[in-house]
Amino acid sequence: MALLPVLEGLHSAESFHKAFLGAFFERAREIETHPASFENALQGRIIATVFEEASTRTRLSFEAAAHRLGAQVISVADSKSTSHAKGESLLDAARMVGSYADLIVWRHPRDGATRVISQATNIPVVNAGDGRLGHPTQTLVDLYTLHREWGSLEGKTVGVMGDLRNGRTARSLLWGLTLAGARVVLLPAPGLDWEVGFETRVLERSGLRCREVAHPLFKEWTGSERARLLEPKGLLQGSLFRDQVPRVDRLDALYLTRLQVERGAEASKGAYPGIRMRQMKDPLLEECLVLHPLPRLAEVPVELDEDPRARYFEQARMGPLVRQALFLGMLRPDSWPLPDLAPMPSGNPEHRLGPCPNKGCITLQEGIRVPWRVCGRKNRHFLCAYCDSKLMAEYVGCHSSKRVHPIHSQEVMKIRPENLCPFISRDDALQDGYQWGG
Amino acid sequence: MALLPVLEGLHSAESFHKAFLGAFFERAREIETHPASFENALQGRIIATVFEEASTRTRLSFEAAAHRLGAQVISVADSKSTSHAKGESLLDAARMVGSYADLIVWRHPRDGATRVISQATNIPVVNAGDGRLGHPTQTLVDLYTLHREWGSLEGKTVGVMGDLRNGRTARSLLWGLTLAGARVVLLPAPGLDWEVGFETRVLERSGLRCREVAHPLFKEWTGSERARLLEPKGLLQGSLFRDQVPRVDRLDALYLTRLQVERGAEASKGAYPGIRMRQMKDPLLEECLVLHPLPRLAEVPVELDEDPRARYFEQARMGPLVRQALFLGMLRPDSWPLPDLAPMPSGNPEHRLGPCPNKGCITLQEGIRVPWRVCGRKNRHFLCAYCDSKLMAEYVGCHSSKRVHPIHSQEVMKIRPENLCPFISRDDALQDGYQWGG
Amino acid sequence: MALLPVLEGLHSAESFHKAFLGAFFERAREIETHPASFENALQGRIIATVFEEASTRTRLSFEAAAHRLGAQVISVADSKSTSHAKGESLLDAARMVGSYADLIVWRHPRDGATRVISQATNIPVVNAGDGRLGHPTQTLVDLYTLHREWGSLEGKTVGVMGDLRNGRTARSLLWGLTLAGARVVLLPAPGLDWEVGFETRVLERSGLRCREVAHPLFKEWTGSERARLLEPKGLLQGSLFRDQVPRVDRLDALYLTRLQVERGAEASKGAYPGIRMRQMKDPLLEECLVLHPLPRLAEVPVELDEDPRARYFEQARMGPLVRQALFLGMLRPDSWPLPDLAPMPSGNPEHRLGPCPNKGCITLQEGIRVPWRVCGRKNRHFLCAYCDSKLMAEYVGCHSSKRVHPIHSQEVMKIRPENLCPFISRDDALQDGYQWGG
Repeated sequence: MALLPVLEGLHSAESFHKAFLGAFFERAREIETHPASFENALQGRIIATVFEEASTRTRLSFEAAAHRLGAQVISVADSKSTSHAKGESLLDAARMVGSYADLIVWRHPRDGATRVISQATNIPVVNAGDGRLGHPTQTLVDLYTLHREWGSLEGKTVGVMGDLRNGRTARSLLWGLTLAGARVVLLPAPGLDWEVGFETRVLERSGLRCREVAHPLFKEWTGSERARLLEPKGLLQGSLFRDQVPRVDRLDALYLTRLQVERGAEASKGAYPGIRMRQMKDPLLEECLVLHPLPRLAEVPVELDEDPRARYFEQARMGPLVRQALFLGMLRPDSWPLPDLAPMPSGNPEHRLGPCPNKGCITLQEGIRVPWRVCGRKNRHFLCAYCDSKLMAEYVGCHSSKRVHPIHSQEVMKIRPENLCPFISRDDALQDGYQWGG
Repeated sequence: MALLPVLEGLHSAESFHKAFLGAFFERAREIETHPASFENALQGRIIATVFEEASTRTRLSFEAAAHRLGAQVISVADSKSTSHAKGESLLDAARMVGSYADLIVWRHPRDGATRVISQATNIPVVNAGDGRLGHPTQTLVDLYTLHREWGSLEGKTVGVMGDLRNGRTARSLLWGLTLAGARVVLLPAPGLDWEVGFETRVLERSGLRCREVAHPLFKEWTGSERARLLEPKGLLQGSLFRDQVPRVDRLDALYLTRLQVERGAEASKGAYPGIRMRQMKDPLLEECLVLHPLPRLAEVPVELDEDPRARYFEQARMGPLVRQALFLGMLRPDSWPLPDLAPMPSGNPEHRLGPCPNKGCITLQEGIRVPWRVCGRKNRHFLCAYCDSKLMAEYVGCHSSKRVHPIHSQEVMKIRPENLCPFISRDDALQDGYQWGG
Repeated sequence: MALLPVLEGLHSAESFHKAFLGAFFERAREIETHPASFENALQGRIIATVFEEASTRTRLSFEAAAHRLGAQVISVADSKSTSHAKGESLLDAARMVGSYADLIVWRHPRDGATRVISQATNIPVVNAGDGRLGHPTQTLVDLYTLHREWGSLEGKTVGVMGDLRNGRTARSLLWGLTLAGARVVLLPAPGLDWEVGFETRVLERSGLRCREVAHPLFKEWTGSERARLLEPKGLLQGSLFRDQVPRVDRLDALYLTRLQVERGAEASKGAYPGIRMRQMKDPLLEECLVLHPLPRLAEVPVELDEDPRARYFEQARMGPLVRQALFLGMLRPDSWPLPDLAPMPSGNPEHRLGPCPNKGCITLQEGIRVPWRVCGRKNRHFLCAYCDSKLMAEYVGCHSSKRVHPIHSQEVMKIRPENLCPFISRDDALQDGYQWGG
């Protein structure tokens, strides 16, 4: 088996965990309180920012963070001026940038791109947005903004609203909120929910359960009074049962996102959900902080800007210092260590599963063989180790016994991870010398 | 009344005054003489440069200035990569940049843009060119170039030639020259004169008068031997009366500008005025310094480059150090203070005057209500506080007496500024409870 | 005679010589070994990078080099945002950038551009690629990569393969390899050989000879078993005579280049040469290092990346430190001197030779009169001093004797260089008062 090496850097909010987040917030607070102590912390270091999608906010935020620590920046701000235009592979481009800098920040329009980039270099790579998949540093900004307010996020109820399907900030935030112990109410715009498999995976990883809750306001946002609530098992809250679905009494925070028009998203019948000043008077939102990764469009009215519950400009202000904390942890672990991130699972590129079914996956653009990873506790799934999409495996063999089984067979759960071998068809397995194990 | 806050930063050359300019030139000279003393003056500071119009000269000049003082730079050099492309408002974009930097330099294609930007942040904003309205740091460069030569500008005669209608450098320069005490001869290209109202306002502010002067060369440039001269009252110079119009004997400097093709300007019949080597031999220009903000096209022949009267490359060289002086005054007033700029008049956004009549005004693009300001000593005018265009007020009410009058009525001059209330129509005023005062 | 001033900076690999290269490699090695000693060597200096062609690799490499030495960078990364877009001349643009920085790095799509740029400023200008003409810092990277391996290049045999006609790296490398004493086997893609005149000039300058050699593999690359070998006179190597053409036994290095599609290059019948893994097993390549300036396309298979003979990623890694050595030599000759580069021959712009015949020459775009330089030991040639193309001179006059001769006449070799005066036609010469000298 030829496992890919463990990736250095920050690729997905899936890597966060409570110890990391706790230490991270403490470091961020330290920087916020004593900025001058960090002014030369990264003197002599070079940070590369490569943005292959239009961006000012995120790029400037990273670059300001670098400068606040005394680091220098080399930058590619315009995707048309990259060597991709001359037909270079992402791996080659990444290896080049990795030769010049001490840390790479990369934004790419393809899902899983930074995990490929990370294969090409042994310096830390920070995902500044990869396709519709993730934006983990935005999640750190979001969580720190809430942490400043509340201390702990445990037991807090946070609504996440808008274009869940195409928005990477929401997907990353779900990892972050659930790993930090918050309860999450999902309020997708009509037709813009995310894929079931993603949510299932989050539930499993965090040991949460999902149940339905209701509130009349939800209907104005999603078209239905009911919404899914992800929460730690054992908890039971809510009141005013309506058709036996418990009603949510309050949201502690509401996170809105923009319709991702640049990813081809369209609001059905112009009904993209936003917040109205009138709704802010509802008891549900009485003490509800309003967050938004920005840029906002109509979903957050300008009138809300002066409201004491508005936090989106505070998020923007937190951007550089959160990234300072991350840079310090990665480039100066001697003086400002952070707990290790949970390692991204290694992938195995040896298989007969064909290409990744996700058309946005980086492997398709780069002509790279999909590395698979396994997940699932009750049923095995095989995911693209780069874009986390479910691969089309229907049969699973065992390297050791040389037997192959249908993927939902109980036998599959008994195979040790290092012996797993997925197949699309039984014939593929038989041709590879496996015997039918039923 | 909800006046907008006074703007921090430098938005218009209208803010200059003699004490400021005097101290500024002294500081610039100090930096020119002892550059090493300022090398670390802005260490740890971040200056953001946002250029939403093509530029290299001005952007690099600002960035070199920042680096010469030890500051770091974050930059948006390409308008297509901004978050505007995602539909963000200028106010939101400005607030974001303001979260990351200690000072913002912004160029924008719309008139009055930096005054909007300044509303969104409490750090200094420097106008690096807003539409066709102004370019005040270029004016500081122009004036300092003349100051190095002459010491005082008082009594000097400076011609300003070319595309006055579309060129922001000429408009800013008129403020600068008149506030510094120079006499100005206006030599607009045929059909490319600026608006009467602008010149009237300059005359009033600086206590100047306008009269006609003549010279045969003027005809080659503007199509007429006669030209307007703006000069301090009381002065009377010139010789060789021709049709009773005094002839100008010498120009101490001539400032040429480029046809602003990117603003839709067209020279009538290809007759855009430039200088010819032959003309340089005319006694009028015998000791005349030639300035140009660059880039130049055919209006300044390459043959002039080696002429001892050419100063345009010296202007370019002065660019960074003039901007250094400005940065120091704004970010290190403790050590290198400058006199306060005259405050830009606050605007009042409460009115029924409708949208700004200037199609290039930033308020139209951003959907912002025009804030009006008042000006005029003999007659009241109401101007857009952002783009300085005259608003369509025909009637003026008094908050205190609740009476309304035609705008040119003597009564209007008696109303105290804080009680002024402009109307487009008498009916609007009556509907608002004003009585007709005649 | 109005000779142009000698150019400061690095414009062509033609300027290299053994003493320079030896000292340069020593300096580069010093920086590689003790990077920390150079961290503040250029503190307070500003380096400008202007890239008027798409680039990331080269630009980031230069900028990383600047930052590793403590210098600051101002940059134009996008050709569309330059003042050329407003119609400015290259000379004016260069003078502007020269006012802001201490050293300029410039890439331009036209042959000879940096030699024009250098006329406008008295700070060092470094050619980062000018049209299809040269890329001398890439050559320093290439040579240093080989120097690290071999120490001396003398007697080594290096193949140069691919798009010689349109590739500037290959043209520069030929100067570099021959001046460093290596033997060079030329393996142009079918139809993509460079101009005879260039090679003749290299041979003459370096005192080399050219003869034919053969190897079966050559046919797979160029369509012919035979190839030209440039080597020091006197040497005679090779074995296995085949049709009397000596066979090459081994290549010590093979330098591949990409098809320069952006310069309009097309591979004839899709037969652009690359290396195959199978070929790497041939004794010819047994110890052959493989180099490529990158980005690569199919000409170097990904499978080769892990081969111990692959050196192209090492080249990329050497990029910044080689440029550090150059910056130090140019900006801190007090502490880190380098031997002077051979001066680029001055040009004489006074002549009746008409425009440069090379359509890619910078003089055509800028409307500059071609300055000529003379070369040739057995026959005089007249070259464009900017793009090195042969000018159409057929007759040569002598300023002193006022006689004119056909260019190939023996009389021409007797004229002292400072008296040379080229003509296209005899009539031109007679009109200028020359007498026919036969």
